[in-house]
Amino acid sequence: MIDTLPLQKMSPKEGDTGGEVDMTPAKAELEEKAKAAKAASRRMAYLSAEIKNKALHNISADILAKQKEILAANQLDYKEAQASGMNAAMLDRLMLDTSRLQAIASDVLAVAALPDPVGEVFEMRTLPNGLLLGKKRVPLGVIGAIYESRPNVTIDISALCLKSGNAIILRGGREAVHSNGALAKVVQDAATRAGVPDGAVQFIENTDRKLVDDMLQMRHYIDLIIPRGGAGLIKLVRDNATMPVIGAGVSVSHTYVDRSADIAKAVAIAFNAKVQRPSVCNALDTILVHADIAPKYLPLMAAELAKAGVEMHCDKRAMAILKSNSALKLKAATDEDWGKEFLALVAAVRVVASLDEALEHIERYGSGADEAIITEDYSAAMRFLNEVDAACVYANASTRFTDGGQFGLGAEVGISTQKFHARGPLGVRELTSYKWIIFGSGQVRP
Amino acid sequence: MIDTLPLQKMSPKEGDTGGEVDMTPAKAELEEKAKAAKAASRRMAYLSAEIKNKALHNISADILAKQKEILAANQLDYKEAQASGMNAAMLDRLMLDTSRLQAIASDVLAVAALPDPVGEVFEMRTLPNGLLLGKKRVPLGVIGAIYESRPNVTIDISALCLKSGNAIILRGGREAVHSNGALAKVVQDAATRAGVPDGAVQFIENTDRKLVDDMLQMRHYIDLIIPRGGAGLIKLVRDNATMPVIGAGVSVSHTYVDRSADIAKAVAIAFNAKVQRPSVCNALDTILVHADIAPKYLPLMAAELAKAGVEMHCDKRAMAILKSNSALKLKAATDEDWGKEFLALVAAVRVVASLDEALEHIERYGSGADEAIITEDYSAAMRFLNEVDAACVYANASTRFTDGGQFGLGAEVGISTQKFHARGPLGVRELTSYKWIIFGSGQVRP
Repeated sequence: MIDTLPLQKMSPKEGDTGGEVDMTPAKAELEEKAKAAKAASRRMAYLSAEIKNKALHNISADILAKQKEILAANQLDYKEAQASGMNAAMLDRLMLDTSRLQAIASDVLAVAALPDPVGEVFEMRTLPNGLLLGKKRVPLGVIGAIYESRPNVTIDISALCLKSGNAIILRGGREAVHSNGALAKVVQDAATRAGVPDGAVQFIENTDRKLVDDMLQMRHYIDLIIPRGGAGLIKLVRDNATMPVIGAGVSVSHTYVDRSADIAKAVAIAFNAKVQRPSVCNALDTILVHADIAPKYLPLMAAELAKAGVEMHCDKRAMAILKSNSALKLKAATDEDWGKEFLALVAAVRVVASLDEALEHIERYGSGADEAIITEDYSAAMRFLNEVDAACVYANASTRFTDGGQFGLGAEVGISTQKFHARGPLGVRELTSYKWIIFGSGQVRP
Repeated sequence: MIDTLPLQKMSPKEGDTGGEVDMTPAKAELEEKAKAAKAASRRMAYLSAEIKNKALHNISADILAKQKEILAANQLDYKEAQASGMNAAMLDRLMLDTSRLQAIASDVLAVAALPDPVGEVFEMRTLPNGLLLGKKRVPLGVIGAIYESRPNVTIDISALCLKSGNAIILRGGREAVHSNGALAKVVQDAATRAGVPDGAVQFIENTDRKLVDDMLQMRHYIDLIIPRGGAGLIKLVRDNATMPVIGAGVSVSHTYVDRSADIAKAVAIAFNAKVQRPSVCNALDTILVHADIAPKYLPLMAAELAKAGVEMHCDKRAMAILKSNSALKLKAATDEDWGKEFLALVAAVRVVASLDEALEHIERYGSGADEAIITEDYSAAMRFLNEVDAACVYANASTRFTDGGQFGLGAEVGISTQKFHARGPLGVRELTSYKWIIFGSGQVRP
């Protein structure tokens, strides 16, 4: 799951920017780390699955064995955050406890249990001239991860990178720097003990914003940058990175209730998509409802959502249907409500005249992330699945399933919001590339 | 095959830059074209294979039917280039004649004969909760191609983009602007006649360098930029593009002759790799020879290369073996010769003590493009194939095979020199992405 916090810690005005004079040693240290990661990545590329899995098992065990140190570090972060006035939702994201550490440790084992993506050979064929050629999967090299808030991301990303044979440079947010540092140390020690080359896991303690700029210039050492966080972070990285980027985060999710929807399913799915965890990217933002079913569906839906405290921003037709129920939290929708990611217990509601109008709305306002249709009409479902251009297109299920763990990828480095290279949840395969391997017997080109 | 010309036409000092006042309409026109391409791309995404293949057959037929107009346009370019003092090799690249048009027309049919990559469904599986999910291949959207010199690139790129359901914006070099314009018109007319949406193929006539900068800012309309040409063009695009880039061109190719090589094969392969077409990216740059076989191999190799006029830049040990033969064109190698792309009848030659030394040399000086080992030693071949990190790694074959046509991809948009998304020859599949499709029956996330 993606952190979608605003880019509070990335503002150039904030923090301990020491001025250009002090920056030089910090940049030099970063460059040393990046260089060490690059060197390690060459050996990581053909590390055995056995060593990689041993490292993951070690990490999982050490998270539990060293929970005192980890929780103590987390307490430092938590108290600083509390003192600085961080809100309850963000404090909750930051907080670790035994049960959360157990869940994190167990996720690492799920990654260990995945097949090793590296070395997979595919599209192999013999050409008429006798050349045997195909593709072999290889790691990308060095992954730079820039992320915010939740400390478990340190472990998730490390585990997926190790499994896929990539070296990693971790740069978390300042608010979690002690927790991230403690977790990164667990990863480093556990990996080294298993035989992973030194230098494969680098952690940047210095959370100076200027170092992010420096990092984005290091294309000779870093093969891919993954910014995982709010729109500000992703834009900053896209605009300034000199290496490939996969942006992860920010999505506007629509659920369209078709005229033929099963109303009970449609209520349950929209409720789940909105309420189960409203602060994340795959939570529902807008409900589109076919006009034929709206008079029946909307009152039931709205009553459920109201129980969870959801505020509804309704277009005129939805308002006309709902306004008689004074128990609902209703507002007239404005233009800003369409295409808005709420990250809160708010949903925009619009009545549409047809599937076509729903498709047009999604094309216009969607962010290409998670979109769902609820329908019992086979052809409507197939049209929606075919025509909606988004990372994850659902028929009759909650968009909350967009998640590496839910999709069977073990975990995720993030959820890609772009179309190039990888789309949706990023698992180990998405952290790889390939090389062509060609077996000849003396062939020359005529 | 990649054009590897220097970036003569891209210099900001050259050309008819009309100043900022005149630029506004040109940029506005470009933006209109980009917008039209984006609109067309939405319909291209679910165009039937039948229509796409009909368009390709039309293009192939029209290239032959309209050869008078095409050749007349090409003559305009040719005469202007001649008058401007273009060298013979570049004039030859520019020149079209009936036999070249026939070859181009026939390549288009090869693309038509490929399976349609769009709509392919893969990694489909049912999760324990009953969700049926997998990936469906989709076009990237709008491809911007910035290329140099050879007019056939206009057709190759158009054909591959149409086949893969992408809209395309073509921006060729000024030296071929009449030829490219005539060919783009053939593509546009032929595609429209087949039922391809208007606007799917855009051609930029204005070769002002400033428009390239403008194009690189249009990430809302252009999903991928492919610079195909020399190092200067690729760097310019990488440094300034706001959308994903696949750089195509520039490679340093090594052929390593192992101690156990079959000498006849090793001579034939190195000769072919160097001489068959020296001006292209997959031509051999450096020969590495194991010390044990060098005294036997190098004299034979050098005598063959000398017949073709190849100049050899030798390290000390190679020089010691070869210097007695006065028929050879020898020079002492300097540090600049290692890792240099010659694009000419020049080869660097170095004697190494071991396979390890060869691997180290390639890791240090290679550009990750095409690398070959010539050996009869099974384990040496397998080590080389495993350990060399390059787009195309060969055992016992000429690096000249790195080519979309030769690899069975029909043609190529270029040869990627990067690791992210696609590596080596770019065919239709490399111009696609995927979306996750999820078939549910009411599932909500617990």
